Amino acid sequence: ERAMPNPNCQRLFDRARELGVGFYLGYAELTEDGQRFNTAITVGPDGAILGKYRKVHLPGSVEPRPGNRYQQLEKRYFQYGDGGFQAFRGAQEWGAPIMGMLICNDRRWPEAWRCYALQGMELMVLGYNSAAYDPNGGDAENLEIRTFHSILSAQANAYFNATFAVAVAKAGVEDGAGLIGGSVIVDPNGMILAQAKTLEDEIIIAACDFEKCMQGKGPGKIFDFGFHRRPQHYGRIVEQAGVEPIA
Amino acid sequence: ERAMPNPNCQRLFDRARELGVGFYLGYAELTEDGQRFNTAITVGPDGAILGKYRKVHLPGSVEPRPGNRYQQLEKRYFQYGDGGFQAFRGAQEWGAPIMGMLICNDRRWPEAWRCYALQGMELMVLGYNSAAYDPNGGDAENLEIRTFHSILSAQANAYFNATFAVAVAKAGVEDGAGLIGGSVIVDPNGMILAQAKTLEDEIIIAACDFEKCMQGKGPGKIFDFGFHRRPQHYGRIVEQAGVEPIA
Repeated sequence: ERAMPNPNCQRLFDRARELGVGFYLGYAELTEDGQRFNTAITVGPDGAILGKYRKVHLPGSVEPRPGNRYQQLEKRYFQYGDGGFQAFRGAQEWGAPIMGMLICNDRRWPEAWRCYALQGMELMVLGYNSAAYDPNGGDAENLEIRTFHSILSAQANAYFNATFAVAVAKAGVEDGAGLIGGSVIVDPNGMILAQAKTLEDEIIIAACDFEKCMQGKGPGKIFDFGFHRRPQHYGRIVEQAGVEPIA
Repeated sequence: ERAMPNPNCQRLFDRARELGVGFYLGYAELTEDGQRFNTAITVGPDGAILGKYRKVHLPGSVEPRPGNRYQQLEKRYFQYGDGGFQAFRGAQEWGAPIMGMLICNDRRWPEAWRCYALQGMELMVLGYNSAAYDPNGGDAENLEIRTFHSILSAQANAYFNATFAVAVAKAGVEDGAGLIGGSVIVDPNGMILAQAKTLEDEIIIAACDFEKCMQGKGPGKIFDFGFHRRPQHYGRIVEQAGVEPIA
């Protein structure tokens, strides 16, 4: 997509605005200078784009892996997101929560959630298209463990960051390959408020009282970051990308 | 404790060595210059101290909180650990895994686990004395959610870092206050291999094949840190302790 909205998806924007419904939309972005990003936007109930995010954690590889039935080639077709993790305000109608966005594999990386939480995040929204097979483990479908990992990531990172989180799957079979479900809405305690139960289309709903985030990270609380974090000991997280093993 | 071992616990060291059993031991450390740390050591089956860790994430407050039935005063009685997160080698008899140690509240901080994982951690060991009441939420006992948070922290951080983890509770009632149980041994997929079921003394056992860590973080895998991490976007994690909220 060269612009958002554009004629191909204008009807989505129009219909959502008629209904007063906001949404998160993921798409393949093509910039004027020819860069391609895996991108998502959050759109308010008035149709305004409130936040935009380009995926930072691209899984897979640049080159196809010989002999693999399935290929995971995000590193081939997209550039790494160049904007980092910029929190933004949700719509007034939603209580104007401080929001973050991630895309798919990003949700497994606690660094990403923390960078948003350090801006006061109260609501994370993310979408995922996660294969039901293990992209690193061969052909075997393993819906159960892949769904477990997806929900575990949402619950734990919501808890660690005392934020609501909405993680939405594109479930079912696409081009003959299975995708996991497991969409969840999670509260700042990491508890599941609503969960999709099938691999079909579903709607899940939960009311989110953003005041509850302060029970986890308000002044003096267990996740009062400024009171308890010790960043002088976290240097490796930014000083090295990979493992520097001990002797 | 001014030294470890010392006459008060020498019998523990002697008996463990007779049996060829290693152990993790938490204690209050008093240094020669009068500093006090919440400290843990890992002892090999030959009685040698393999690793030592001083707790970084002290919960609670310096001053008692008026009107609270329970007080959490670790910040009053201990200095913050000054050694960071230094991985070490476990005993040859254990397969010489790269190990990390944490203490109690540390396990809720993904930064701590990641700093060890960036040194190749294959086995995390940690102990906790976690109150069954919410130290930030008043007097109400809430064994269920506190145990959920404890197990969630172990499972998620083991998964995110593709490491085995052993998290051990001091369970039951002490000085009239309840402590949670929920000791677990978790594999690099975040799956529970063994779990204590009561608030009484229990032994839980699991065989740990450290090769399995590479299924998560070996070359080209989903958590191949050097291939997938993007530390240029993680700056906030070390540049700010607390929240810098957006406008």
